[in-house]
Amino acid sequence: MSAPLRLGIAGLGTVGIGVVKIVRQKAALLTERTGRPVVITAVSARTRDKDRGVNLASYDWEDDPVKLATRDDVDVFVELMGGSDGPAKAATEAAIAAGKDVVTANKAMLATHGQDLALAAEAAGRVIRFEAAVAGGIPVIKALLEGLAANEITRVMGVMNGTCNYILTRMQDAGLPYDDVFAEADALGFLEADPELDVGGIDAGHKLAVLSSIAFGTKVDFAGVELEGIQRISIEDIQQAEDLGYRIKLLGVAQMTGRGLEQRMSPCLVPAESPLGQLTGGTNMVVIEGDAVEQVVLRGPGAGEGPTASAVMGDICDIARGIRIPTFGAPATGLRAAKAAKSNSPAPFYLRLTLKDRPGALAKVATVLGDHGISIDRMRQTRHNDENAPVLIVTHKTQRTALDSAIAAMQDTGVMAGVPVALRIEAV
Amino acid sequence: MSAPLRLGIAGLGTVGIGVVKIVRQKAALLTERTGRPVVITAVSARTRDKDRGVNLASYDWEDDPVKLATRDDVDVFVELMGGSDGPAKAATEAAIAAGKDVVTANKAMLATHGQDLALAAEAAGRVIRFEAAVAGGIPVIKALLEGLAANEITRVMGVMNGTCNYILTRMQDAGLPYDDVFAEADALGFLEADPELDVGGIDAGHKLAVLSSIAFGTKVDFAGVELEGIQRISIEDIQQAEDLGYRIKLLGVAQMTGRGLEQRMSPCLVPAESPLGQLTGGTNMVVIEGDAVEQVVLRGPGAGEGPTASAVMGDICDIARGIRIPTFGAPATGLRAAKAAKSNSPAPFYLRLTLKDRPGALAKVATVLGDHGISIDRMRQTRHNDENAPVLIVTHKTQRTALDSAIAAMQDTGVMAGVPVALRIEAV
Repeated sequence: MSAPLRLGIAGLGTVGIGVVKIVRQKAALLTERTGRPVVITAVSARTRDKDRGVNLASYDWEDDPVKLATRDDVDVFVELMGGSDGPAKAATEAAIAAGKDVVTANKAMLATHGQDLALAAEAAGRVIRFEAAVAGGIPVIKALLEGLAANEITRVMGVMNGTCNYILTRMQDAGLPYDDVFAEADALGFLEADPELDVGGIDAGHKLAVLSSIAFGTKVDFAGVELEGIQRISIEDIQQAEDLGYRIKLLGVAQMTGRGLEQRMSPCLVPAESPLGQLTGGTNMVVIEGDAVEQVVLRGPGAGEGPTASAVMGDICDIARGIRIPTFGAPATGLRAAKAAKSNSPAPFYLRLTLKDRPGALAKVATVLGDHGISIDRMRQTRHNDENAPVLIVTHKTQRTALDSAIAAMQDTGVMAGVPVALRIEAV
Repeated sequence: MSAPLRLGIAGLGTVGIGVVKIVRQKAALLTERTGRPVVITAVSARTRDKDRGVNLASYDWEDDPVKLATRDDVDVFVELMGGSDGPAKAATEAAIAAGKDVVTANKAMLATHGQDLALAAEAAGRVIRFEAAVAGGIPVIKALLEGLAANEITRVMGVMNGTCNYILTRMQDAGLPYDDVFAEADALGFLEADPELDVGGIDAGHKLAVLSSIAFGTKVDFAGVELEGIQRISIEDIQQAEDLGYRIKLLGVAQMTGRGLEQRMSPCLVPAESPLGQLTGGTNMVVIEGDAVEQVVLRGPGAGEGPTASAVMGDICDIARGIRIPTFGAPATGLRAAKAAKSNSPAPFYLRLTLKDRPGALAKVATVLGDHGISIDRMRQTRHNDENAPVLIVTHKTQRTALDSAIAAMQDTGVMAGVPVALRIEAV
């Protein structure tokens, strides 16, 4: 029997408590599977006096996560505080400097400082593991980093923010407008303290940037992720999409092109019958495409105490078993800078326009599209009130740049009565 | 840069050649990701003079796989010959005895001799890896063995034989009877030399036995898998199931119960709209349920050169990276004997009877069911020819033992005109 693996856990929210519970309740299972006991030495959180439903008396308490991270009797610093900077980053850096391995669920920190942290960890001979940072309980980091390691990855995509998927699903099922469902989600505690992180696509964008780095051997480049949130998705868009046989999902796509690395996180239309289209509520899905494996799809819970703790504990088991690989698969010193390419792979687009109700308005818009080389697959005028005519267009494959130019030109025609909505239709 | 990892590959069929291609074409990628070159030292196959579409001249040739497996200049023996015994087993044992690690795609060998091989390998400090043995390109072994290691697994299930799923899908799509589609699949080269391995559920049963061992910490127990093939599935069953909102899949289910380990591989009805129901052609799907992670679903290609070679290479990359864990997760010396339990968890059943066309026949059958405590959810008499009346019944939840008794009792009523078909309706 080897020496116990000693954890110091910073952050005792849902996930932290989930981890504590697994370590307490599954001591025998963990020892059997990893060959050594996994124990908690000390914990840290902002508030000490709070009933967390689990007895923490047998663990040392540290007010300061940096102190926790550098204790002599801690082998693995488990960072579950969150936030890209501040205490999470300070404590992680301190842990690495003190020769600890790190397990974290912190996508914001990895997306922002992943490269520097990886360099520091690898220089110190330490590992940083982060299965829980992307897609909750789904072991997608492991699949990409290890299981599919012999593949040239061609595309990674996924629905990775359960809150957004909940909002979009709920809008569709209940026929409710965005603002109402947003308020509901807020009341249910589904939203981050800064809701923009969720509905603005930032949280999911962080996850995509981390996946991209592993997939393409590039330095994490969150700044290179084109972000578009779901705030402008109307119930009308959702219903029109459904009518056309599609669902709207906040979909992240990363692919290497001749022009560089495309990374986008944006609401897209996907076929209603596709696995992504069928995804409801808080469930996440990641699609990995590689030259050898073709396509692998992974689906599972994107958040929650049990699933996220399962992912954190998977990393801890790996460390207990002596599994040690570089943070992003290849050594951080060898990762290439990602050359960010504007997302411009051709695709059909869904276009919802509101036109002033005057003769020739539709013709003007159609002419503009034709002038920009965009051909129309389907067009319909949907409803009609006294002033404005909502028009729905599905284009044939075109580039986003062409579409943006066309939309700009439409604004000069004098027939537009609102900001057009343009959503990519993604082949999945 | 560490020393190269030197492979000896036995078996140069589709998968073996796929592995050779990846090693040749991706030398830089493999070195970057694993930290050391991966090279092939020697190869072996039954026939030397055969154009395999790839130049093997730079590798030593061994006629005898045992010789290949024990060469001083081989670190990893890659067993891609297949067959539960014979040369595959002899060479694997020889490799372990000679201190080599083993990567294999051989589910038959693992299902039959997995425990003994694991004991030998672990005693010698060697690893046996087998991602390609289950569900082709899907990294499901890794997910179960490592990613979900902190979960008490409650159920594992999956569609893991692409040929059977192809046959069932094709019967449904083309409205063709089993025999015709079987002949088609044979002509397309989709079937094993002994087709019973596929359509009898044996190949998929091997895979389920291997998954069970990892999931439940038990010794591989293929003998404990209840096997039922797809040979008796008629086009009528497929069409009736569709009508009821279901699809028929050859589904493997393993779950630990109070009575012991249930393992069954049998044709089941699953909801047409469920991920399993939506699975077509040769695609595989594995569903893993654990106490912490809830449910994770993995989907991908179940066979083929690229996907299977991707899985073999994933194992090789792990070994190159120094990832070493026991064959079935926990040390083989500690695996418990699986106490096989007859599969008897309650479920609704689909029952297709052919009754003699005489007054009171239906009443007799219904009475028998009632006498056995089986209540009827739906019943319909489907078509009718001059002699026999086909009757379709969906029961409420019942146990297989009760249903089997009822079916036996029906035979004594004198109204049965054929062997009843009883298929479990699985909640997925």
